[in-house]
Amino acid sequence: MISRKKTKTINIGTVAIGGNNPIAVQSMTKTFTSNVAETVKQIKRLEEAGCQIVRCAVPDTESAYAIDKIKKKIRLPLVADIHFDYKLAIIAAEMGADKLRINPGNIGSLEKIKAVVSAAKERGIPIRVGVNSGSLEKKYKHPTAKALVESALSNVRILEKLGFYNIIVAVKSTSVPVTIEAYRLLSQKVDYPLHIGVTESGIPKIGTIKSSVGIGALLAEGIGNTLRVSLTGDPVEEVRVGYEILKALELVKKGVTIISCPTCGRCKTQMEKVVSEIERKTRDIIKPLKIAIMGCEVNGPGEAKDADVGLAGGNGSGLIFVKGKIVKKVPESRMTSALLEEIRRLI
Amino acid sequence: MISRKKTKTINIGTVAIGGNNPIAVQSMTKTFTSNVAETVKQIKRLEEAGCQIVRCAVPDTESAYAIDKIKKKIRLPLVADIHFDYKLAIIAAEMGADKLRINPGNIGSLEKIKAVVSAAKERGIPIRVGVNSGSLEKKYKHPTAKALVESALSNVRILEKLGFYNIIVAVKSTSVPVTIEAYRLLSQKVDYPLHIGVTESGIPKIGTIKSSVGIGALLAEGIGNTLRVSLTGDPVEEVRVGYEILKALELVKKGVTIISCPTCGRCKTQMEKVVSEIERKTRDIIKPLKIAIMGCEVNGPGEAKDADVGLAGGNGSGLIFVKGKIVKKVPESRMTSALLEEIRRLI
Repeated sequence: MISRKKTKTINIGTVAIGGNNPIAVQSMTKTFTSNVAETVKQIKRLEEAGCQIVRCAVPDTESAYAIDKIKKKIRLPLVADIHFDYKLAIIAAEMGADKLRINPGNIGSLEKIKAVVSAAKERGIPIRVGVNSGSLEKKYKHPTAKALVESALSNVRILEKLGFYNIIVAVKSTSVPVTIEAYRLLSQKVDYPLHIGVTESGIPKIGTIKSSVGIGALLAEGIGNTLRVSLTGDPVEEVRVGYEILKALELVKKGVTIISCPTCGRCKTQMEKVVSEIERKTRDIIKPLKIAIMGCEVNGPGEAKDADVGLAGGNGSGLIFVKGKIVKKVPESRMTSALLEEIRRLI
Repeated sequence: MISRKKTKTINIGTVAIGGNNPIAVQSMTKTFTSNVAETVKQIKRLEEAGCQIVRCAVPDTESAYAIDKIKKKIRLPLVADIHFDYKLAIIAAEMGADKLRINPGNIGSLEKIKAVVSAAKERGIPIRVGVNSGSLEKKYKHPTAKALVESALSNVRILEKLGFYNIIVAVKSTSVPVTIEAYRLLSQKVDYPLHIGVTESGIPKIGTIKSSVGIGALLAEGIGNTLRVSLTGDPVEEVRVGYEILKALELVKKGVTIISCPTCGRCKTQMEKVVSEIERKTRDIIKPLKIAIMGCEVNGPGEAKDADVGLAGGNGSGLIFVKGKIVKKVPESRMTSALLEEIRRLI
């Protein structure tokens, strides 16, 4: 339903982003990249959670050389995240990084950028121009949306002048409205794929909401080709939230979607218990499945009918729906088991 | 920064919505409304959490008559949520409800709507036309965005023909894209305030994301005048999430905002521990305060400078910033206490 902004397609290892490709979910390791064993372990956990692209910080030579060793043990495309020292970008490219992220705010002179571009060209890997509110070039007094976009565009133009078009762009701010405004502006100016996210959005409890609002608003306007949720916490949670944002917008159809009523003064059954038990027991299902668990006769029958499987609870009993038809009426004590039975039958 | 769609102002008891009024956060009780003591207790908890308008289901005469008793013990405006039986709406109005929510899908004939309108007119209270994907009139085969809007508009026109303009409208779907599309359409057609939300969005873990995406996307486009996050769980959590959505979009400025980096292979300090401790110890602060807690030299100094108070961690030590200036350098063991000290000084 959402009409997506057309962009070029760019390949990050085996993952294509932009064009008509699905929106790729990425994350970043929080281990020392030079600690190959720990980094590989974290990447495997991320991969299991559905992460499609992983980024590692490359703050020193040891980390840059570790990329080769990490790459040999993982399947995900690996992005080298470079700040300050352009030489690390060159080593990272030689070590097999699938993409380089450079920060225009701190990468230095044109000569240095030229050297990075040569390395990327030689390997055929893309560069992400990743502007960030916290590290914008000093000439910009404040990280406004306009400033973030101007910084990104001037760096994109430098790459283009060097004959390099294998580009992804990001303009992240810690402020959600600034992030939204910046990407809206940017998407009108370039047709490169955009990597979207709200930077440094905080602990999961709050960062999940900031990221869902910021990334969600952009995706709802058709903007964004790959996303990263940035949370202070386990990166696996970043991937989970990323997928839930895509699922909310129906941009990915995978696994169970539970429609469940908030309950109110009409609800005469223990719906919350039923919902949490069903959620726990169905969260590993991969097949797309819509389950409605409703507490009364207001929206219950309608939603239950509209779902693949549904339960419309009433006074001491519940109606079980499958593909729009009532299949049985069960007492309250058997609602969860009867619903699970129908779910198992469908998958 | 977000340009908001202009609407009429409508008063719900002492709370004005629409026009230039702030976006009001509402919730709904999950107790039996006829159980006055429990309902009042829950409303008090909601009020403490910042809820501005509360809604109670009115499924029977006992609940309708309870409104008067509940109203005497609370300060929040109370909305009576009516389905099926228009007579309950009339009693609710007589009992002092500050707004009536009726559902066009099940309220019945024109005669019945007329009676409800008379009761609302007499008391000077608004009516919300609250369409919902699960209970759309049967003539619509599927709850598409267009169908939801058509149902809402035809009911709004009925009220208008009866000379009633004290209206709020909602077109909630369980589908986030349908919800977004429906409100986009609706906001072009009416200038009444819109009550927004994603209906039956599920358990907090997932419903928080669905609601943040749906409500956030609409607010980011300037649509929406009051919101309700619908979660299967404690209604206090609905209010918390509602405020976090508004805070994310900077539509409300209250309390602490923590900018904290996700950490990565550059981070040599235990940032996650610092962040969660600071969050825990500052969550009751009411004054707007931006705190940046950052793990390295990439975005650390920039974000720390831009915040009211900031910490840029490095290798075994941290720089403390206040209003853009470095005030001290502390060893890792004292980072949390030094930051808290500056926060206390500021509030």
